[in-house]
Amino acid sequence: MNALPCTSLWVWPMLYGLGIINAEKSEFNEDQAACGKLCIRRCEFGIAEDQEWLTVCPEEFLTGHYWALFDGHGGPAAAILAANTLHSCLRRQLEAVVEGMVATQPPMHLSGRSVCSSDPHFVEEKGIRAEDLVIGALENAFQECDDVIGRELEASGQVGGCTALVAVSLQGKLYVANAGDSRAILVRRDEIRVLSSEFTPETERQRIQQLAFIYPELLAGEFTRLEFPRRLKGDDLGQKVLFRDHHMNGWSYKQVEKSDLKYPLIHGQGRQARLLGTLAVSRGLGDHQLRVLDTNIQLKPFLLSIPQVTVLDVDQLVLEEEDVVVMATDGLWDVLSNEQVARLVRSFLTDNREDPHRFSELAKMLIHNTQGKDDGGTEGQVSYDDVSVFVIPLHSQDQGSGGH
Amino acid sequence: MNALPCTSLWVWPMLYGLGIINAEKSEFNEDQAACGKLCIRRCEFGIAEDQEWLTVCPEEFLTGHYWALFDGHGGPAAAILAANTLHSCLRRQLEAVVEGMVATQPPMHLSGRSVCSSDPHFVEEKGIRAEDLVIGALENAFQECDDVIGRELEASGQVGGCTALVAVSLQGKLYVANAGDSRAILVRRDEIRVLSSEFTPETERQRIQQLAFIYPELLAGEFTRLEFPRRLKGDDLGQKVLFRDHHMNGWSYKQVEKSDLKYPLIHGQGRQARLLGTLAVSRGLGDHQLRVLDTNIQLKPFLLSIPQVTVLDVDQLVLEEEDVVVMATDGLWDVLSNEQVARLVRSFLTDNREDPHRFSELAKMLIHNTQGKDDGGTEGQVSYDDVSVFVIPLHSQDQGSGGH
Repeated sequence: MNALPCTSLWVWPMLYGLGIINAEKSEFNEDQAACGKLCIRRCEFGIAEDQEWLTVCPEEFLTGHYWALFDGHGGPAAAILAANTLHSCLRRQLEAVVEGMVATQPPMHLSGRSVCSSDPHFVEEKGIRAEDLVIGALENAFQECDDVIGRELEASGQVGGCTALVAVSLQGKLYVANAGDSRAILVRRDEIRVLSSEFTPETERQRIQQLAFIYPELLAGEFTRLEFPRRLKGDDLGQKVLFRDHHMNGWSYKQVEKSDLKYPLIHGQGRQARLLGTLAVSRGLGDHQLRVLDTNIQLKPFLLSIPQVTVLDVDQLVLEEEDVVVMATDGLWDVLSNEQVARLVRSFLTDNREDPHRFSELAKMLIHNTQGKDDGGTEGQVSYDDVSVFVIPLHSQDQGSGGH
Repeated sequence: MNALPCTSLWVWPMLYGLGIINAEKSEFNEDQAACGKLCIRRCEFGIAEDQEWLTVCPEEFLTGHYWALFDGHGGPAAAILAANTLHSCLRRQLEAVVEGMVATQPPMHLSGRSVCSSDPHFVEEKGIRAEDLVIGALENAFQECDDVIGRELEASGQVGGCTALVAVSLQGKLYVANAGDSRAILVRRDEIRVLSSEFTPETERQRIQQLAFIYPELLAGEFTRLEFPRRLKGDDLGQKVLFRDHHMNGWSYKQVEKSDLKYPLIHGQGRQARLLGTLAVSRGLGDHQLRVLDTNIQLKPFLLSIPQVTVLDVDQLVLEEEDVVVMATDGLWDVLSNEQVARLVRSFLTDNREDPHRFSELAKMLIHNTQGKDDGGTEGQVSYDDVSVFVIPLHSQDQGSGGH
């Protein structure tokens, strides 16, 4: 498992392509990437009925592949720690449930021992499948990794946080776990499928306002929980203005009071939207010590390290050679739409059928497209952010990984 | 605005059909319905700059239509109060924002007075449209009605709660607001569109577990927050069993401790699922005093009165005479699927083109279908619950209501 060098383009030809560029807004690249083969050791159940896992067991492995992008903020420390740690957390979490994963249906008891004869029926009724254990392992791995980062940063006196976008290919499925504003999409000849959702102060407004409603002390009297179309000022006092609160998807009007003039909990629009005036994402790893400038107000209670996991059933797809998953940090998606990326992907792969390095060349090309250099068209604006891109061909994955 | 008699079939021929049946599981029908024309008084802005709404203003009305179903539990009191109250709350909420609703774009200030020249730009950037004010009014009306019910029940020494499903036709759109497990669907010749989501302990598991995680005292040490495939017992102690917590969509295994043997916060499957062993819904009105049997544990903190609002842009549909919205309490949907209802609707309306009462006959027929009598086919099981059905033809609505 490799944490990749920061500012170079790193390539594993044929299997997939990776491109990273440092926008030089900071000395170190705040984007980090990691990838590699995932080997999950399977242990046999103990023979004695109450025996726990054997610590020494036949060496049998379930293998998969792992790709991860981490977009750091407040320095690269959290992103580097995440790139060095998350895959270990995930392997540990998967190894803890692997016997359930390889069963036709996860057993109620991991030991396989049946306590109640209708246990399989209860598991069936809840619709629990092997893939739910992988989803649970990813969710738990993010939490575990976040705890490790918190401890490591505190111990070393460092600060910072990062987003995390992870793809895991396992048993014929691709799992995409996302916490932050990176994005993964599937690009096929006739299809674009979005494999992740972004978690920003805007997309998570209701959850964030709800927390501030339950725990008003988190705002220390410095912020207003309510959303208005813009920050209010003295002239608005006493007027009825558009607003919404935690329970509302719609809008209403309220008479402006003095407390409404405080700085908004969520402020700004689109890429400028900030949580507590500080952070552009609402999920990610790290940031345990982060406070609003010159205050004691902590960001962490509003930040979640919980990813959303999407499952792509690769085995159910009739794959073509040019079917790829594109994973990238927000630097790419800020300047290129899903449709623009898909267009670039399709035309590049069609034009470069014979090039054995075409997937890494494609990742490189996508990044160059964010820099105002157009290798493949005249689309797109210029990104001033770090940009990292993985291009994962599903076809060769399918051949290469082999599942269990 | 009429609260309808409880156990009779009530019909407003041509405009729409309503059927209600008392399953006689209780003396009074716990299902209640209300419907009628919604008249929203428009007031002119005051002439003097800081003048508030004129209390006497030119009588100008924005009209719409209102249909509502309330499925009571713990007695009919809350459902009756809701049927008598919610439309007044909604009218008041709509009247408070009507000037914003009729504007091309809702103004930042309800007075229309501009404080900042780029205010329209901010409103535009947030994407706030007239329909967002109706959604906000519905959300606020549910909250207001819930407060009224809480006060009235307490004052009269009564108890109970109810679900609420409301449809409002206004300015060429149909708004469907739902809190509970009733359902509304659009049935057209080639389309079934679900217009509401159900809110049950199962569909809201994560929200409910999250609240218990934040406020463990709400469970008073009597319940476990965790979900297991079945209730655990002594034999499971020390074993590793399937579970999930508030942050998980997937499943994992945990070693069973004594506290895991407590009664689960959410228990049972499907129609049998209960919140705190007590309630089958997680949203609705009332239940302010409801406690878990023989304990002091309150249900209300876990219950929300907030509806989810769906907007159907009726004006954008090329309507046919047989396009209808079917609203019904869970008694119908427990025994008939959306597809079965759509099949019954389509064949009945086709077979009864000339009948001027066909929409009310259809509502009656759907209800009879839940009673094991098949007027239209051999589909469906038998419902032992109260059942209420509205059939709303969109075509005649379109002609009949006329918007503003």
